[in-house]
Amino acid sequence: MGQTAGMNRIKPVSMKQVSIKDDFWSYYIDLVRDVVVPYQWEAINDQVEGAERSGAVSNFKIAAGLQEGEFYGYVFQDTDVAKWLEAVAYLLINERNADLEQIADGMIDIIGDAQQSSGYLNTYFTIKEPDKKWTNLTECHELYTAGHMIEAGVAYYQATGKRKLLDICCHMADDIERVFGYGPDQIRGYDGHQEIELALVKLYEVTGEKKYLELSKYFIDERGQKPSFFEAEAERRGWTTIWSNNKLQLDEGYYQAHKPVREQDVARGHAVRVVYMLAGMADVARETGDASLFEACRKLWGNIVSKQMYVTGGIGSMAQGEAFSVDYDLPNDTVYSETCASIGLVFSAQRMLQLEPDSAYAEVMERALYNTVIAGMSRDGKRFFYVNPLEVNPKVCSGANHNYNHIKPVRQEWFGCACCPPNIARLLASLGEYIYSVQDKTVYTHLYIGGEAAIEVAGTKMVLKQDSSIPWEGKVSFEVEVDQSAEFGIALRMPQWAANVQVTVNGEAYDVTNKIVNGYAVIERVWESGDRVELVMEMPIKRVRSHPLIKGNAGKVALQRGPFVYCIEEADNGAQLQQLILPQDSELHVSDDPAIAGGIVAISGEALRMNMDQWGQALYQYDEPIPLKQAQIKFIPYYAWANRDMGEMSVWVKEQL
Amino acid sequence: MGQTAGMNRIKPVSMKQVSIKDDFWSYYIDLVRDVVVPYQWEAINDQVEGAERSGAVSNFKIAAGLQEGEFYGYVFQDTDVAKWLEAVAYLLINERNADLEQIADGMIDIIGDAQQSSGYLNTYFTIKEPDKKWTNLTECHELYTAGHMIEAGVAYYQATGKRKLLDICCHMADDIERVFGYGPDQIRGYDGHQEIELALVKLYEVTGEKKYLELSKYFIDERGQKPSFFEAEAERRGWTTIWSNNKLQLDEGYYQAHKPVREQDVARGHAVRVVYMLAGMADVARETGDASLFEACRKLWGNIVSKQMYVTGGIGSMAQGEAFSVDYDLPNDTVYSETCASIGLVFSAQRMLQLEPDSAYAEVMERALYNTVIAGMSRDGKRFFYVNPLEVNPKVCSGANHNYNHIKPVRQEWFGCACCPPNIARLLASLGEYIYSVQDKTVYTHLYIGGEAAIEVAGTKMVLKQDSSIPWEGKVSFEVEVDQSAEFGIALRMPQWAANVQVTVNGEAYDVTNKIVNGYAVIERVWESGDRVELVMEMPIKRVRSHPLIKGNAGKVALQRGPFVYCIEEADNGAQLQQLILPQDSELHVSDDPAIAGGIVAISGEALRMNMDQWGQALYQYDEPIPLKQAQIKFIPYYAWANRDMGEMSVWVKEQL
Repeated sequence: MGQTAGMNRIKPVSMKQVSIKDDFWSYYIDLVRDVVVPYQWEAINDQVEGAERSGAVSNFKIAAGLQEGEFYGYVFQDTDVAKWLEAVAYLLINERNADLEQIADGMIDIIGDAQQSSGYLNTYFTIKEPDKKWTNLTECHELYTAGHMIEAGVAYYQATGKRKLLDICCHMADDIERVFGYGPDQIRGYDGHQEIELALVKLYEVTGEKKYLELSKYFIDERGQKPSFFEAEAERRGWTTIWSNNKLQLDEGYYQAHKPVREQDVARGHAVRVVYMLAGMADVARETGDASLFEACRKLWGNIVSKQMYVTGGIGSMAQGEAFSVDYDLPNDTVYSETCASIGLVFSAQRMLQLEPDSAYAEVMERALYNTVIAGMSRDGKRFFYVNPLEVNPKVCSGANHNYNHIKPVRQEWFGCACCPPNIARLLASLGEYIYSVQDKTVYTHLYIGGEAAIEVAGTKMVLKQDSSIPWEGKVSFEVEVDQSAEFGIALRMPQWAANVQVTVNGEAYDVTNKIVNGYAVIERVWESGDRVELVMEMPIKRVRSHPLIKGNAGKVALQRGPFVYCIEEADNGAQLQQLILPQDSELHVSDDPAIAGGIVAISGEALRMNMDQWGQALYQYDEPIPLKQAQIKFIPYYAWANRDMGEMSVWVKEQL
Repeated sequence: MGQTAGMNRIKPVSMKQVSIKDDFWSYYIDLVRDVVVPYQWEAINDQVEGAERSGAVSNFKIAAGLQEGEFYGYVFQDTDVAKWLEAVAYLLINERNADLEQIADGMIDIIGDAQQSSGYLNTYFTIKEPDKKWTNLTECHELYTAGHMIEAGVAYYQATGKRKLLDICCHMADDIERVFGYGPDQIRGYDGHQEIELALVKLYEVTGEKKYLELSKYFIDERGQKPSFFEAEAERRGWTTIWSNNKLQLDEGYYQAHKPVREQDVARGHAVRVVYMLAGMADVARETGDASLFEACRKLWGNIVSKQMYVTGGIGSMAQGEAFSVDYDLPNDTVYSETCASIGLVFSAQRMLQLEPDSAYAEVMERALYNTVIAGMSRDGKRFFYVNPLEVNPKVCSGANHNYNHIKPVRQEWFGCACCPPNIARLLASLGEYIYSVQDKTVYTHLYIGGEAAIEVAGTKMVLKQDSSIPWEGKVSFEVEVDQSAEFGIALRMPQWAANVQVTVNGEAYDVTNKIVNGYAVIERVWESGDRVELVMEMPIKRVRSHPLIKGNAGKVALQRGPFVYCIEEADNGAQLQQLILPQDSELHVSDDPAIAGGIVAISGEALRMNMDQWGQALYQYDEPIPLKQAQIKFIPYYAWANRDMGEMSVWVKEQL
């Protein structure tokens, strides 16, 4: 199983090769194009009335000398512009748009003017603390910010062929390469927030410049080495922190700098940083063939998905530090589960699939994408969740119980710290990147999302047309177009949530029983144009139980159908969701509900409910158990929650034991 | 039902009249005398190696000019000395002790020297900010600190007849009376932390000086009036706060100053302040016959005990602000439930019993006392809980998951903010004060604690000897001694946790069926010396369920036997307590366990446990429910938890529904 990078090279099929046309996902991509990206442009230009000020664009104008004023926002405010540009680039790959491109070009011109002659590019330090450059890597996100600009530069070049932003980024990266390294006059350090690592590999891939790959590897190798860079840096700075006048309290685990990355077998600290780091590690492992780094990726990934991931694909259970807690500590109500962390998990999964084609990675990618990621955005694309709880009681939110200060029972407008909305936008706009990959003679299908892909496999150029009724129904068909007949394999992921998967090739049953490798049914044959593969799978309602070491889920059940994890909401079930109990044998049935979030498939059935009528006023009562009564229960997909009136929600429901 | 204060005056039987000799409680009182008070004297003198510095005594020496140095500790550090002196006074009431008295007299001399000529007494402001006196009532606890000194002064006078500390307190109170009030040159304000209110009523009672009662009433009446005193004060001060360099964020609800006390029908904010306020309100209602204040007490009390109290008698479910949350929000794991808050609840209950003899108050008093209060101290009297969780997982404490930073899985040594240990000491040392009260011709027995009480009832002096096997067994006997036969009533609380209560008078069955008034069986007769009343009650194991609006307890059961709420610990049941399920019909039996916490009665029975053996590695699994297997379960009284190896604990256990 698996590979050492460099051998049997796996490549994702890039989004340039894929055009999505899908009943479920096209809506989101259109939404990003028509609503999210235009709205975010207004937001970063401070033109949205009532929204928190951003300052992101004006910071660049100030740094470029085009405008007077002071820096506004977080030290990493530049990334809102970068992520917006990256999303724009993906939209332009999907469909050129001269107006949008013109706006982006204008922004890029400003960015160019804001860059210093050395290549340095960061409006916070340029405007506000020009003498403090590279003095607080621990906290100030300088390389993180650079990384996002590089991702934008690479994407915009791929989209438009225009080199300006790419050149700006190369100039910036060359400056970074001069500043950081093992040399006597170089900073032997790395950033507090990982991101540059994966960005530099992208820059390497598009430019072919090996120095960028080496710089990425340097940041990964150096992280967590002793003596501690962050300690030494803090010492030089007098232990100042940008957050207050107090002294810095350095917790290196928060930054994944407590030990070298190859020794980190438990995900710890800020969740987004962990998965961005993991993506960068996997990139470098793939490009350099570093087996020890590949093994480190597997360990860290394994810990996350087998001990620290919510059933919704959320990660990072702790609000303080937006961080991982300890193994199996996954509270549903005080949870953090940042949208960006699940986006990072998707990034990591895609990278792991480039190290070894194992459907376990794709399953997690799908889980995060169909649940937490799209739950992060309202159906109209205008409101966002930063935190994604699995259990909500609005009565204790909004300051009533301070344990829930971070939990919002309804999605919010653009945030001051606006990492999540543009991150959703860039992921959705680039969704084509996550569907297929190719290894040797095999095309892997990781996600069942309709559209066309132009793929080169085993020397053959082919077009693969996918038509998918997933996520709502279980039928997917593929049609192959080739110039001339060719032998290769198509590997179809066999989803864990599916049952009785029937495959036909050109209408004839195809027995995949002995063809399943690492979760994929591999159909190898000589393909002709017009060949059709069909999958028909049942999507039964799955009762999900969690590992009995997860304290909060013991005795509870969740439902899943297809890729969707379900939840119950007050709008359908009344308040006091804790009073509902699902018998193990109660029949559940699906039904369309066109009124919720643009139309969903709901799950309903008979349940039991604690009968409060007979309780009275006492807080505690002796001897008599609370009687149960029959009750209807209705589940909707988790991603669609909070699109109606504010109310309670819960993913996990008590089960009759 | 009930009374307007002034009519049918109810008086508690003071601890001077009661000597406790009880199998359960004498141990604790001896512990306070032999261990806690000596240890705390060392602690407040900074003589305990390894413990946090206190500074409390040296602050007084510095303020008195007897020592050089700087103030150390919290603004209310003086109260540690006051509470220690108060506990000493109670011990001296129980048993004179020349050595201890000499130490206390020496301390009082220092306190006298630290008092300013005006009467002002507070070492923080005397030493550190002499020009800031009375400028930050909101935060600086000046009147709170004064209140504790008054309680000490009253108690020490009652114990020894020595007036020195009492006179110091009168001098201080007179100064306060000059400073505060409705006059043009007076501060029309009150303290951020209630305490002076109840203390001034004590001072009034011992001195007969009505002005102290009026001052107390003034503080209560003025609290929460508009325009806001705290706002005006902050405005004058420029919104400074003593906690940081930031601006004060004023949440008047935290201080119960968001509305006048008579309009507060929901307990809100810092829990200790609420119950100290409630005690003071009840005191003033009783002494002034203020019916509206009495009604306000009932409302606030009713909200606490019927919507915001843990089954252990803990209150204040929220760590931030050590505060009440909202109705029915009683999480078991992130709970606060400060020991001092339950002590304050005992204070309030005793005051409510002086407004109306209703056993509901005594039930709560007993619940808090036998569970949270004594859980607050280790069996050896050397370690303390500040926070009293109902569910503990040590793996997430100690910084692993920051939601549990305030939860300690083992009791701690003396704290820097040492409110709880001396509060436990003074309550236990004065336990005699809480057992009986008298109204008209009736002696009420609220707690079944053995000993002798000298009581005057209906003009007759009598001695009531109680012999109690509560809390472990259900037999209590009383013997009456009177100079001459007299007619009066003895009202015996009929505990809610008891069954089949049999009463005999002089060995003959006495049918109480129609004699029960407000939860007390009233035995009225002409009593002769040697008359004996016996209660024999069954103490069945009670299964407790909580109101179905308490989300965290739905589907769970707790056990209670007698006054004790029980819990399960890892030491008896293995780890992963969430995997245990108690069938509704499983037989439970009691057994002595002499090895735990000096000997307890345990409860054991058959339960079910989720069988992890068949689970495997996956975090989530489809379709197969987790199989259950037979398991033994063992409960111990909650107060005795954490006296063995560190481990998990839970009060509420899953119930098979």
